[in-house]
Amino acid sequence: MNVLFGLRRAKQLYGSNHASGGFTWSEFYDRVHRKAAFLRESGIDKGDRVAAWMLNSHEYMELYFATAIAGIVIVPINTRWSAGDVDFTLTDSEAKTMVVDDHFASKVGELRQAPRILLSCDSSDADIVFDEPDENDLVGLFYTSGTTGGPKGVMLTHRNLWSNALHTMLATGITQGVWLHAAPMFHLADQWSIYMNAALGSTNFYLPAFDPEGFLRCVETNRVTDTIIVPTMINLMLHHPSFENYDLSRLRRILYGASPMPGPLIELAMRKLPNVEFIQAYGMTETSPVLTVLSHKDHCGAPLAAAGRPVPGVEVRVVDFNDCDVPVGECGEVIARGANIMKGYWRRPEISEEALRGGWMHTGDLGRFDEDGFLYVMDRKKDMIKPGSENVYSPEVESMILAHPAVLEAAVIGVPDPKWGEAIRAVVVCRPDHAIEEIELIAWCRERMTHFKCPTSVVVADVLPKGGTGKIQKNVLRERYGRSSQ
Amino acid sequence: MNVLFGLRRAKQLYGSNHASGGFTWSEFYDRVHRKAAFLRESGIDKGDRVAAWMLNSHEYMELYFATAIAGIVIVPINTRWSAGDVDFTLTDSEAKTMVVDDHFASKVGELRQAPRILLSCDSSDADIVFDEPDENDLVGLFYTSGTTGGPKGVMLTHRNLWSNALHTMLATGITQGVWLHAAPMFHLADQWSIYMNAALGSTNFYLPAFDPEGFLRCVETNRVTDTIIVPTMINLMLHHPSFENYDLSRLRRILYGASPMPGPLIELAMRKLPNVEFIQAYGMTETSPVLTVLSHKDHCGAPLAAAGRPVPGVEVRVVDFNDCDVPVGECGEVIARGANIMKGYWRRPEISEEALRGGWMHTGDLGRFDEDGFLYVMDRKKDMIKPGSENVYSPEVESMILAHPAVLEAAVIGVPDPKWGEAIRAVVVCRPDHAIEEIELIAWCRERMTHFKCPTSVVVADVLPKGGTGKIQKNVLRERYGRSSQ
Repeated sequence: MNVLFGLRRAKQLYGSNHASGGFTWSEFYDRVHRKAAFLRESGIDKGDRVAAWMLNSHEYMELYFATAIAGIVIVPINTRWSAGDVDFTLTDSEAKTMVVDDHFASKVGELRQAPRILLSCDSSDADIVFDEPDENDLVGLFYTSGTTGGPKGVMLTHRNLWSNALHTMLATGITQGVWLHAAPMFHLADQWSIYMNAALGSTNFYLPAFDPEGFLRCVETNRVTDTIIVPTMINLMLHHPSFENYDLSRLRRILYGASPMPGPLIELAMRKLPNVEFIQAYGMTETSPVLTVLSHKDHCGAPLAAAGRPVPGVEVRVVDFNDCDVPVGECGEVIARGANIMKGYWRRPEISEEALRGGWMHTGDLGRFDEDGFLYVMDRKKDMIKPGSENVYSPEVESMILAHPAVLEAAVIGVPDPKWGEAIRAVVVCRPDHAIEEIELIAWCRERMTHFKCPTSVVVADVLPKGGTGKIQKNVLRERYGRSSQ
Repeated sequence: MNVLFGLRRAKQLYGSNHASGGFTWSEFYDRVHRKAAFLRESGIDKGDRVAAWMLNSHEYMELYFATAIAGIVIVPINTRWSAGDVDFTLTDSEAKTMVVDDHFASKVGELRQAPRILLSCDSSDADIVFDEPDENDLVGLFYTSGTTGGPKGVMLTHRNLWSNALHTMLATGITQGVWLHAAPMFHLADQWSIYMNAALGSTNFYLPAFDPEGFLRCVETNRVTDTIIVPTMINLMLHHPSFENYDLSRLRRILYGASPMPGPLIELAMRKLPNVEFIQAYGMTETSPVLTVLSHKDHCGAPLAAAGRPVPGVEVRVVDFNDCDVPVGECGEVIARGANIMKGYWRRPEISEEALRGGWMHTGDLGRFDEDGFLYVMDRKKDMIKPGSENVYSPEVESMILAHPAVLEAAVIGVPDPKWGEAIRAVVVCRPDHAIEEIELIAWCRERMTHFKCPTSVVVADVLPKGGTGKIQKNVLRERYGRSSQ
């Protein structure tokens, strides 16, 4: 099995359907083969890495398939990265060629590395026959900052990504439709969907970069039926002043994931879009990415705080520090096994072995299962705070702080404390024209929550550092604000 | 991945659901582990073959999972076999132990081989920890007569059977329900469903052996929602005088396969059971078994004569004698690739290599694709008849003969002919109290069909030889009736 199964299926079953960019799936199929031929003629060999620095586009989707056909390992560049981060990735992956679109062409000069630049990716008429990829060949290196060992390339194979497509189709029940690539395509959050959309013969549209009104307009204009976005995008979209002006009646499913969705936000979304099925997907780059899905049906009556149940094909357990199962209901580390689990981290054998010990991916997330097999993700293991002998899961504290009317965004981190070992510090961004005092926010929490869970210090910031999908980067927060609380 | 993924999923997500035989999935899980321990304590090692000679039952389903846990290779015995066939299978597979149920216990004495007999399969309280199976380990040897090389054991692995479960769930959209094992569980026709039913947490009921009224009664009594049966069973069930007396209102899906369904029969079935979704599955033991599915939706408006479209995860092509694709619409051999394709035939490396050449399973079936990716299976390659330079596909001729009011069953075979090379001979069974003359049946065909497709000789028989799923055995017919037409 390999990701070309999906592409060939699109051609065989849905050849005359509109794939994307005005092309049918038959035309798309031919175009990606010509792009693959162009890459090979450009002297790029099987197994070589090629970086891609692009916004969401039809060209990007073609490039993903073209590299897969040619056996080239794609290295998608996070569009939020600084030139330094891009340089690191080019060096680490040894990508000697980079495909860039118009948007990033002007930024190439800022790099210290000087890869060969291909502007988008041309096509060739040469009739090259490519070897069928082995299922364990790499499709791409997907760089994540992660929490240990700094940035590293997650090696995902044909089997990984194709298995995820099958698992996720099965768990979500998505059928042929019109998909909007609104989350960044360099990131697994949306990238996985290209294989599913090929297998289903769906039509694809693209937002080069997310903005709420652009999203609403694109959904209306293109009669979009399905998409995956992240909670911050849902928040922006629902609260946009023009929300009511757009016809979203064709929209039938919104998948969401990449970070936890606050309860009030998903409830608001379900109220404002009553005909849309909401489906939560939980996972990470290392798992290609989906581990659990909270189906639409589960949203109606079941626990919204859950991340869902393991998708068929993936086994998920919650274990203690010896990798032994904890009893149902108790918290431990989430580990997972299945054909979707990464091959490892690029050229980091020790970290890979540690993460994959015993044949299970150790996610670094803390969670618990209930009796019905619903997984609740409590926190990142590294983000949990331990004041004294207690365990405090940061999302719980953050939800309480976010409920304060003056607070727009919030994150809590642990800081060294001579008495308790660790103390809780909140970093908050205020809403426009609002302000808040440290003592007031601490009091707000202490009135509503067990005292040991409440922050003992508060920092008001202008902005919180965020990753490619809008997730707050706690490692950056700890660097900036993590000095002793005394 | 392995078939235990499904079993553990049943326990984790659906532990309190009724699995079968009055046991919940949690209890089922414990019972199969105790059975696995019993088998291991009985001195059966990992990789050993154990035959099973049983009718459909809860015990059979437990045994399939218990052997999988213990790494034992199960060898299901066709319940229609003669003692000689069973002896051959025991010898060929080197199964030194055989699990038999009450029904077959009395037949053991007829065998020449003297395997150790386990009556059903007991359980042990020993706490044995089993190694996790490798995905390429064998689950079972499934003997097929096939058309070349005589009976042989199809080696199916954990990955084969689990992949098929995922593919088939995805293609059929089956959800949790109440499944009736009505087709024989020794055969892949029904056997595959045990993995799906575990993964879904469905409830299982069993017909020890198919009879139409028993089927109807069981569907009513147990509120059966889903089942897979073969066309001959549908025929018997629909025409049973008590059909109208049973409440089949819970039935929501009937899968069918294992042999082609005549058009008038599927149309009758859809009329008589208007609330049931009919789903066709085409495949063979060697493909674990499903290759294509004609969905319920495809039954409403699409071509009923099609075998369906390839399931996601399986690639199907139609090729010429050089394994090159034939154009859409043209007939050739059906070949398939995917994680569901067998490891090979047990200890038959040459035949295995031939069947799997180039990494594709050569099905021996003739078929064609249409523009929308629907596959039409025309005939077995070995059953196609060549009078002169023409190709005659036997199902087309058989359908015409079956339309004659006096004919109950029919099959056509090629017999040597000095002038044309091969001539068409029909072997027919008449309806009770009916008779037919050779000349009359030939005339019936010639009035309705191109002459070269019509039989030139007719044999009236009392009964047609059939395999385990009711498929007519043309190789036996050719032995009995295949002498020259002169």
